[in-house]
This record gives sequence, C-alpha cells and structure tokens, in this order.
Amino acid sequence: MNQQETICAIATTSGGAIGIVRMSGPESLRIICSVCRRITPTTTPRTAILTPICADDGQVVDDAIVTLYPAPHSYTGEDCAEISCHGSRYILNKVIELLIRQGARLAQPGEFTQRAFLNGKMDLSQAEAVADLIASNNRASQQMAMSQLKGHFSSELSKLRDQLLRLTSLLELELDFADHEELEFADRNELLSLAQHIEQRIKTLAHSFETGQALKQGIPIAIIGRTNVGKSTLLNRLLRDDRAIVSDVHGTTRDTIEDVVDIQGITFRIIDTAGIRQTTDTVEQIGIQRTYDAIAKARIVLWLFDEAPSEPEIADILSRAEGKELIPVHNKSDLTPATVTTIAGHVVISISAKHEPTLDALEQRIFQAAGIPDIHEGDIIVSNARHYEALLHADEALARVIDGLNTMIPSDLIAEDLRLTLAALADITGGAITTQETLNNIFSHFCVGK
Amino acid sequence: MNQQETICAIATTSGGAIGIVRMSGPESLRIICSVCRRITPTTTPRTAILTPICADDGQVVDDAIVTLYPAPHSYTGEDCAEISCHGSRYILNKVIELLIRQGARLAQPGEFTQRAFLNGKMDLSQAEAVADLIASNNRASQQMAMSQLKGHFSSELSKLRDQLLRLTSLLELELDFADHEELEFADRNELLSLAQHIEQRIKTLAHSFETGQALKQGIPIAIIGRTNVGKSTLLNRLLRDDRAIVSDVHGTTRDTIEDVVDIQGITFRIIDTAGIRQTTDTVEQIGIQRTYDAIAKARIVLWLFDEAPSEPEIADILSRAEGKELIPVHNKSDLTPATVTTIAGHVVISISAKHEPTLDALEQRIFQAAGIPDIHEGDIIVSNARHYEALLHADEALARVIDGLNTMIPSDLIAEDLRLTLAALADITGGAITTQETLNNIFSHFCVGK
Repeated sequence: MNQQETICAIATTSGGAIGIVRMSGPESLRIICSVCRRITPTTTPRTAILTPICADDGQVVDDAIVTLYPAPHSYTGEDCAEISCHGSRYILNKVIELLIRQGARLAQPGEFTQRAFLNGKMDLSQAEAVADLIASNNRASQQMAMSQLKGHFSSELSKLRDQLLRLTSLLELELDFADHEELEFADRNELLSLAQHIEQRIKTLAHSFETGQALKQGIPIAIIGRTNVGKSTLLNRLLRDDRAIVSDVHGTTRDTIEDVVDIQGITFRIIDTAGIRQTTDTVEQIGIQRTYDAIAKARIVLWLFDEAPSEPEIADILSRAEGKELIPVHNKSDLTPATVTTIAGHVVISISAKHEPTLDALEQRIFQAAGIPDIHEGDIIVSNARHYEALLHADEALARVIDGLNTMIPSDLIAEDLRLTLAALADITGGAITTQETLNNIFSHFCVGK
Repeated sequence: MNQQETICAIATTSGGAIGIVRMSGPESLRIICSVCRRITPTTTPRTAILTPICADDGQVVDDAIVTLYPAPHSYTGEDCAEISCHGSRYILNKVIELLIRQGARLAQPGEFTQRAFLNGKMDLSQAEAVADLIASNNRASQQMAMSQLKGHFSSELSKLRDQLLRLTSLLELELDFADHEELEFADRNELLSLAQHIEQRIKTLAHSFETGQALKQGIPIAIIGRTNVGKSTLLNRLLRDDRAIVSDVHGTTRDTIEDVVDIQGITFRIIDTAGIRQTTDTVEQIGIQRTYDAIAKARIVLWLFDEAPSEPEIADILSRAEGKELIPVHNKSDLTPATVTTIAGHVVISISAKHEPTLDALEQRIFQAAGIPDIHEGDIIVSNARHYEALLHADEALARVIDGLNTMIPSDLIAEDLRLTLAALADITGGAITTQETLNNIFSHFCVGK
C-alpha cells in the first residue's frame, strides 16, 4: 500500500442513471486535468464543473460533473477528484481505463478509507464503521454504524484510556513510595476501586456485542407448526406489513429478500421450516427433523396452531425450545376461537393471519422476545468481532490487575498487565502500532471504491 | 406530469460505496434545507458541502455531500439538489422517505430528463440519447448516443428543416405568380432539384438505421459445426480475448454476459448452437434443427470444421446460409493442416483455437463481415426506432412532393405534403406539439433517477 500512488475506482454499482468514479493521491490533479477539458490546476475546489471526459484520441467518452477535493480537506486527506458520469458500464470502465493510462492504478477494496485512517482523518474503529454503514440494512444497524463513525465509541475508549493511565501513574507513585507501607495500602484501595470501575465499563461494552451481533445479522426466528395452520400466510403477512412501510416510497430499489422481516427497525431472519406433514412416515420424519433443526438455530420460536395442541405435542415442543423465546400463536381465530390462554406459562397470542387488519400485538411480542434493549442516541453497542475480541483481551488483562491488587503482587508486575490492557484497547482505534496484516484483514472486507 | 411538483429519486443502484439521490423542482431548496443542517438558502451553488442528513427526530441518517444546482443552470432547468451518501439501501431509502415527508414525490422513470426537455434544455432526440448513453455497452453504441446527445442529429434535422422551408417559400412564390406560366416552369425545376437533394439525405439517414440497430443490439453470429471441432474452445477464446482488453482494469464491475463478444468496439451476440451430435437419430435430428435455427437468426455464420467437409455437407450449409455472411474456419490447424483454401468462393480461415496466441485474422474477418461502415466523429447514425419511423414518414410525404412537382399537380396540394414532411421531422426533436402519450412512451423506458 504505497500512498505515493494515485488510486481510482468505480464507487457505484453499474446499472443506475449516474455512476461515480473517485480518485485519490498526489497525481490526482494532473491526471484529472489531462482527461477533462474544462478542469485546470486553478479550478475552484469543491465546485461541480460540467466537462467532457476525453480519450487520448480526443473522442468524448462522456459529459460528466467533476469535483476537486484538494488535500487535506478531502475524504482521504489527499488530493481527490470525483467524476459523476452517466451510469453505463462501458463509460465507467472507459473512464477508469483513461485514468489508469494517465498513471493511476485501480484501488484495492477499502483503500480510500484505509488512506483516510493512515492520514489521521479517522481512527480504525471509525474506518470500520464506514463499511458497516454501507452494509447497514435497517435502522438499528445504521444507528450503530453512525454512532461509531461519529466517534462515540472512540471517545468512550479514550476515557477508559485516561483512567487506565491514571491507574498507571498511581501505581508508579506507589513504586516511588514503596518503603512507606501505610501509603501503599491506602493507594491500593483507591487503585482497586478505579480498576473495578474500568472493568465494569469494559464488561458492559463487551456484553453489548451480543445485541450488536443480533442487530447487525438479524435475529433468527423459526415459524413452526403442522401443515395448513397458516405458516406461509403468516410469513407473507409479516413480509407484506414490513413492505407497507416503504410503499409510499414506491419504486425505490428495495431488494426482495424473501425471508427477512423488519419489525420496529430490527431485522428478523425467518428460518425455513417445512411443516410437519402427515403423508408417509418417512416424509413426516424428515419434516419433523427440519422443524427441530429450525428450532435449534432460532432465538425465537413462533409456534403456530389452529386447535389446542395435545399434551405430548406440548411436551415435545417445550423440551425442544428450551432456552429459546417461545411464542405460542393460535391462528384462524375467526374460524375457531382459542381455547387455551397460556401454555406452560407462555401467553398464547390469538390471531387471524388471513383477516386481521394488523398483527401489531404479535409484532410487539416478537420485538420484546428479541430482548434488544432500548437504544438511545450516543449509546455504544459493539458490533464488530475484532473490537469484541480486543475488549475480551483488555478484560482478561485487567482481571489480572485486579487480582494483583487484591493479592499484594508487586506493582511492577501489575503495571505490565495494565500496559496489556491499554494495548488491547488501543488496538480498536488503531492508536498503537497496527500491523499491515491487521489493516489488510480489515480493509479487504470493504467494497472497492470506498 | 405537473412541473410544479418537486421530484426525487435514487439515481444509483444500491450496493456501491456511494449512492446518489437527486431532487428537482420549485421546492428543492426548501426541502433540502429542512433535512440538511448545514445547507441554507444562501449556500453557494454548485459547491460540495459535507452535512448531516437528519430525520424529524434529529437522528442523523448519514453524513452526506450535498450540492445545489439552482435554476436555470441545472440538468432539468429547475432548482436541483444532489445528495451523495453512503451506498446503503437502507440509508438511500431513508433519505428518499425524508424528502417525500417534506413534500417531494418520487420521480417517474425518466422524469428528470423529461423536465429537461420541457424546459428547453435539450430536444427530444437528445433526451432519448441520454437513455441510450446510460444503456451503452460498447464503443459504437456510446459514440452514437454521445453524437446524438451533442445535437449532431438535431442540427442535421435543423438543416433539412431550413431547406424544406425554403422549398415551401419557393412554392408560395409560385402560387403568387400563378398567372405567369413561364415562371412556374422555371421554379419547378429548381424545386425538384432541391426536393431530391433533401430526399437523398433523408434516405441516407433512414438507411443508417440498419447499422444503428446492429451496433445497439449486437450483431447475431452463429458458430456451427460438428461436435468436437472446437466450437466451445473458440467461443471461450473470443470471450477471453475480449475480456483481456479490460484485464488491466482488474476488479472493475464488468457484468459477465457469457455469450456477448466485443470485437473492435462492436458487440457480437453469439447464438447458442448445439453441435451436430452423432448419438441417436432423434438427438441428431434435434441438433441439426437447432443449428439450422441458429443460422436463420444469425447475420454471420462461423462454420467450424477440422477436416475438409463433404460435398453434401457443403451443399447443405451453403443453401442454409444463403444471404448470410459465411466464414468457413478450419480449426486444429496444428494437428491437421487445412487442405482447402476456399469453399464456394468463401476463403477458409485456418486457426488453432487452442494454441494460437491471437485470433486477429479471424476477428478481422468477423469485423469485416459485420459490414459496419467506418464511423467518424460527427457521423450521424440513426439507432432509434421512433426516429426511423419518422424519417420513413418524412420520406413518403416528400416522395409525394417530388411526384407532384413532376406531374404538375397544383402547388397548394404539394404544399400540404411539404407540411407533412416538416411535421414528421419535427416529431423527432419534439419541436412540433408533442402529445403526452408520445412523451410517456419515450420516458417510461428510462430508469428512475434520470
């Protein structure tokens, strides 16, 4: 990754009305001037200029809008140029070809953001938030990414770092006064309380990863039940109700992922379950097995029936769904009203998936079962596995610090574990020395053009 | 299509690093100010501003680059705003939702360009060129669209219009001097020569439609031959050689369309042909029939063999390929050198699809067989069926004018046909009254956001 090189990439997928090509690096200005007739070294920065893009033979490839972002006030911190052209695959490739011919090279995935990090425009956790933001597909994942990009997580880590440094200096003070035993004891109590406070905060952050993962990847939910109890109807209703949210926004490109449902801004992944069919024994066996598999993978189990389930059935489902959020649902309430109100303590929800105007009560119950805490602006939820791992490392080292403080281990050994705690936290923002391997690992998951 | 309404749309497909939302109409400035904290009515036009996009509850949806294009110096000629945000489907939809909540409505396909036309920013043929440019997938189709967008076709039509108007006024002069017979004859010769000159030009334009269609849609080519003569190897070679062009541009999003080959900037569509297999009679029959079908649909037939074909085979292929460009190809020349140099006057090309470093000679021959004339900058090639139809109507009316001039039909009847000729040409650029139905027809084929 040589920052002396000028990089370029298509930053949009082809097929739209508009396509964007970006370029960053020391040669950006020279290269853009050589392919755009109306761009010169004195062109006003950050101003949209309509200009022909010309091939070497003078052939006009496109009329495009070009905007210059000179260093350091650009995304990467380097000289940047953005070309907004007609979204034809041919034209976009042709523009890239022209830039490469003039000396640019194609950017690696995430290389623009990597340069932004290397040039100090953002820390590593913010850089990672960029990829999360682009991948975000619901309110919750967008909010988490935005909060991280805004640096809320970074500033929390910075606070922890300050406290750990204070702990370190107090410990050094203890080293200096090692002869005065009475001083030592006094210090250790204060040290311990501070360390425990920090530990609590790190544990909370690490604990939020479960929520973060659920929000990012979607919460697995299984809809189980015998055939003909209305599983497909219910699924379609949930999908349709979800879609209704964007129905005012008719015509927007909303990719149809058939088995993902948004409820109150949270994504639920519907796990396919073949109904328990009553045809032949073999087929029934397979059907039952699939349902069991679905339950095993789910966090929430929607158990649908249209008549009171038998005792053996209840026992079977309860034992299979242990540790899961089980929601018993009596469907077709318009035909046969529900006769049971609870099953083993689980309140039965009564619906008519086919005829009810809204399924608000059921959706609310599903949302509650997801167990996602209320998230407020500024709340920090860790959603990145690398950050989670670093927090665990920090926690382990800090646990040894606390253990050391309790058991009167010498200060210099404790100081070493404090250093490890600091280093683990610094890994998250990339403040410590970050290896090229780590960077490659992080940025290779980005899309090209970001 | 009420131009008082403010329209918005996502102008890129989702899935890229960057996504663009555009807005146009009288309320654009008010709406953009209400959702972007750092945009005010005094924000400098055409300047890229980094600003948070906020929902009603203050939640930051994204940090975006916003550029204002006040009327009349914008794409549509109206007040426009462009929002460049992170390319997440959720974020893009959310931004659209915010704009709609503030009073914008989702644009119809092509509505931005339609407004550009209605506001006199471009004529109808230029507007249509925008869609063609976005859809262009090779050098030829890009050049045709670009030339049309630049107004080369429009200015040619404008010249024809001037000549037709001159013809009309000369005819009116004749009407004024209707009593003086000698004057009438003199005029008629000049009129006739002028009309024939115009007719010639209109015919040339109409004739270019065949080329235009071929360039736009790709030239159908069939690779036929017995099994195991190397049809797949040749196809793969042609595909790979084509792809090699963009191999420096590694990683660009080049959609893989398996059976389309670019040769010297022109697209060839490979028609699938099952080789003539020698298994059972039935299967062979089907194979032969498929090959015949492929030949029927093709404009060029690549006939591949690895040994001199038999007389009956030659006779069969020749009769089937009548009216097509037949290219006999002896493959595997490294194993068995070709023994025939021509077949019924068609020069045999000898190749080794597997081992030859380049297939330049064959590609050159295919390119020639396509019969595409050399295209130079500024050349006008009609590629739009609507324009072709209008040219045919103009030609018909003008033929009646010429007929009338030759047969001494009264001037006022001829004048009526001249008016029809003018009206047909005016249809192309939309200079005459264009019905809403025609506009809907044209713009409904656009993508949303353009």
